[in-house]
Amino acid sequence: MTVVTVIGLGLIGGSIAIDLKHQLNVKVLGVDNNSAHQAEAKDLGLVHEVVSLEEGQAQADIIIIAVPVDAAESVLANVLDKVGTHQVVLDMGSTKGNICKAVESHANRGRYVAAHPLAGTEFSGPKAAIRHLFQGKRNIICEKAKSDSDALATAVSVIESLGMETYYLAPQEHDRHLAYVSHLSHITSFALSKTVLDIEQDEAQIFNLASTGFASTVRLAKSSPSTWAPIFQKNKDHLSVALNNYIKQLIVFKEALDSDDKEGTLAFMEDANQIIRVLD
Amino acid sequence: MTVVTVIGLGLIGGSIAIDLKHQLNVKVLGVDNNSAHQAEAKDLGLVHEVVSLEEGQAQADIIIIAVPVDAAESVLANVLDKVGTHQVVLDMGSTKGNICKAVESHANRGRYVAAHPLAGTEFSGPKAAIRHLFQGKRNIICEKAKSDSDALATAVSVIESLGMETYYLAPQEHDRHLAYVSHLSHITSFALSKTVLDIEQDEAQIFNLASTGFASTVRLAKSSPSTWAPIFQKNKDHLSVALNNYIKQLIVFKEALDSDDKEGTLAFMEDANQIIRVLD
Repeated sequence: MTVVTVIGLGLIGGSIAIDLKHQLNVKVLGVDNNSAHQAEAKDLGLVHEVVSLEEGQAQADIIIIAVPVDAAESVLANVLDKVGTHQVVLDMGSTKGNICKAVESHANRGRYVAAHPLAGTEFSGPKAAIRHLFQGKRNIICEKAKSDSDALATAVSVIESLGMETYYLAPQEHDRHLAYVSHLSHITSFALSKTVLDIEQDEAQIFNLASTGFASTVRLAKSSPSTWAPIFQKNKDHLSVALNNYIKQLIVFKEALDSDDKEGTLAFMEDANQIIRVLD
Repeated sequence: MTVVTVIGLGLIGGSIAIDLKHQLNVKVLGVDNNSAHQAEAKDLGLVHEVVSLEEGQAQADIIIIAVPVDAAESVLANVLDKVGTHQVVLDMGSTKGNICKAVESHANRGRYVAAHPLAGTEFSGPKAAIRHLFQGKRNIICEKAKSDSDALATAVSVIESLGMETYYLAPQEHDRHLAYVSHLSHITSFALSKTVLDIEQDEAQIFNLASTGFASTVRLAKSSPSTWAPIFQKNKDHLSVALNNYIKQLIVFKEALDSDDKEGTLAFMEDANQIIRVLD
């Protein structure tokens, strides 16, 4: 029997817990500092038991940290302070530079594996947890050489058991790429929602006239502020560069539109169409 | 037997044609000035026959115009010049102010119904045509009082047979609302794609690291420039206002981020979350 303690029972932690709970010979303990989330996780059957952090750490073979990225640094440091040589600790946060740096000199750094599953939805909390969220998705591991080889192997087997392939990136590379292909698109969606709510006085018309295109583009604006504010803050240098470029693109397009530069608007869209070649 | 002639066999016209072709007692004739599209429409079985504009107009009970909005004005004027009192003409364009104005004084204005089905995908051309694209969607009709009552009734029955409910709006109201809830989100997606392609030197990482969130937000950047450039141009006044507001929102967010104003970024996202209340 492998005991896995999941700290943080929201969308990511809850989805990990419920998938592991369905595996043979795995006992899943859940830790959450929000009592409403504890109750929801119990009611939803995401874990075998909700326990205290101390009990969860004492019993665990594997500890998975899935809390907001601003809380993750101190939670990880506390867990590593007491970690045994038989235990493995993973964190699942969306930024990796900050947390790798926070524990780089920790005596027990070897027991830790820095991970990031590239999966999610716009929902949050234990009720957002769903089975098979990670199936067919990718996971990034950073600084694999700083993890003990047995810890790394255990972490990879957990990740594979959730249905993911693992890729390896340096923390700074991870954060830079993710600023562009994940974090930026959350901001563009939040801003789209803000604009439409601000400018469209007749809210009923948003509902009446929005089609699947708008729904798709604005979907991430439903995401949890308490999850995303710390991600943006931890990755603000890369994001600031990305936002500068994005604002510049919009100004270029608006100038072409305002000046009836049809060639300019066409060329802009033809360039943008290249995303088909890259993604598909 | 009702004969319907569809002019323009792309995503919208082709999807209308294939659905109508499956109805009892309907013959669908297709017109397209692109010979490759004519051949594709035949091969795909979107229509019973591909015919010339003249033949399509001569045989039709109902004429549906589904061409880019910059071409629609002259196509509609030509069709109305020769329209019989037994015929009904609809156009399906995404802007309505320009086309309603173009034919407001036409002697046969009464035979025309200005429509806009709120449905689509990011794909284009006859190959993008799919069955049931319109099922459960909304359609807007503008200036219904300027259509003869029998023409309006026929148009509504066509639209209902495709699975849509009809709402009525003035053309200027239509264009203003659509700028916010449809056209703007296309531009934000085109710009997101341009930014990521511009800033991310390592294109393989876009493919490796993009998750469902990025794919959803950037989806509309795959849309056809030849469809969308004229829509943006025809609706540029409303879009310019919307883009100004959007750029302003992004600058506000970026300033909060750059200055570590966590309250500011949280408040921005909490405001944006209100889209849940409006859409769901």
